[in-house]
Amino acid sequence: MLDRLSLNQITTERLSLPEAVEACRRHGIGRIGVWRHKLTAAGAREDGRMIRDAGLRVSSLCRGGMFPAATAEERRARIDDNRRAIEEAESLGTDTLVLVCGPAPDRDIAAARTMVADGIAAIVDDARAAGVRLGIEPLHPMFAAERSVITTLGEANDLGARFDPNVVGVVIDTFHVWWDPGLYKEIARASGRILGFHISDWLVPLPDVLLGRGMMGDGVIEIRRIREAVDAAGYSGSVEVEIFNRAIWDGEAEAVLPLLRARYQDCCA
Amino acid sequence: MLDRLSLNQITTERLSLPEAVEACRRHGIGRIGVWRHKLTAAGAREDGRMIRDAGLRVSSLCRGGMFPAATAEERRARIDDNRRAIEEAESLGTDTLVLVCGPAPDRDIAAARTMVADGIAAIVDDARAAGVRLGIEPLHPMFAAERSVITTLGEANDLGARFDPNVVGVVIDTFHVWWDPGLYKEIARASGRILGFHISDWLVPLPDVLLGRGMMGDGVIEIRRIREAVDAAGYSGSVEVEIFNRAIWDGEAEAVLPLLRARYQDCCA
Repeated sequence: MLDRLSLNQITTERLSLPEAVEACRRHGIGRIGVWRHKLTAAGAREDGRMIRDAGLRVSSLCRGGMFPAATAEERRARIDDNRRAIEEAESLGTDTLVLVCGPAPDRDIAAARTMVADGIAAIVDDARAAGVRLGIEPLHPMFAAERSVITTLGEANDLGARFDPNVVGVVIDTFHVWWDPGLYKEIARASGRILGFHISDWLVPLPDVLLGRGMMGDGVIEIRRIREAVDAAGYSGSVEVEIFNRAIWDGEAEAVLPLLRARYQDCCA
Repeated sequence: MLDRLSLNQITTERLSLPEAVEACRRHGIGRIGVWRHKLTAAGAREDGRMIRDAGLRVSSLCRGGMFPAATAEERRARIDDNRRAIEEAESLGTDTLVLVCGPAPDRDIAAARTMVADGIAAIVDDARAAGVRLGIEPLHPMFAAERSVITTLGEANDLGARFDPNVVGVVIDTFHVWWDPGLYKEIARASGRILGFHISDWLVPLPDVLLGRGMMGDGVIEIRRIREAVDAAGYSGSVEVEIFNRAIWDGEAEAVLPLLRARYQDCCA
């Protein structure tokens, strides 16, 4: 299982991409999930080469999406940005672009959901041509007003079903979906469309909405049970550890990565 | 519409029950939602008389629930406490007890959901005998680990459907359900079972998980649209304003209640 472990680099938020790659290499983590704002001045192609030269592979690029906007002009600008994200994913050498779909520009969440569908439709051909798949990541409903109007795996499955499963799928993150009474049914339904699996834990009490995710084992999520369901649905790809947590961000990678590896074994593998 | 307006007394958290009743009377609010921990030493029957003497009626009593627990003994104690809550609702003179169902005592959220169903089953006959209906209130999924494993209106509907609709129904709170892609379908499905409707708004950014709810109009929820759907499903009961917000709690009732009345007219009625 350890070969499936990937460091989503937001977990080591203070590190540059080369530093995160070097930390992974040192701690025997063979995959990395890259964020666009962490790409270096050398560009995605050089960064991809640097990662491969270190013996790592890129599990995904975060993130495209953010489709809803108040004006048609702004929506076009967002679509253009998604096209750049697809190019960067291709250049970097990963076949998966994670989509965080975006909040509504006003109170009309139904209209925003339509804008998300329209936005994905606008970039599907670009993604196919680039050999990049688009992974719709449903975010926890507490982010509905600020980050994503796509809030459940059921909704992501419904949205994905409108498109070619070779191009559009879903990304499942334990933190976002663990509470859902329909979770296991929807994981099974996502079979053939699961493009990524992210793990972190839900702390009690929740320390912070954005920066309160926990290290696996420190919270209440049945991470292994969810991983087993995802695997049973046919997924055998990377397991990215993606933790937005102030204390972990402030910690030293030399301490965080060994802990992350151990907890992955204890709680997920 | 103004006759349906009810002050859920948590909105004026610093006031005693007599003070909240007097504030409602002064500001032409004819209904109040009462919390158990605010009942006076005189007891629920006297409190009910005091409320009626002031010309108000009780829209509901908050709250029963909290069924899941680690041991059978503790679960029995919770059920006993729900029986006391039913008695208090009857004494107070309201036919609706709101259920906040409780979190899991461990990581097994599915088992906790079963404990909720078992807990309701254990008190249904008591509720029927007392003429008190049990309103299952789904809470926002961000409360799944700390307050309620019942997280969506769909789940509350499924749970309610196991019981006599004359005794068990649902309570719909805009803050908890607004994000749900299945919301309007589930509101329609709740027809005949809607025992309460609570309103507040979702602020952006969210100031706090527990104490960050907003005054109607200050956030992104389509409150009137949801109210119209609830009414279209056959509900014509109270509309309780229930706001957990530190700034509103610290404000003066003389300022908060007129604002609340005006915003109710602007955003909901």
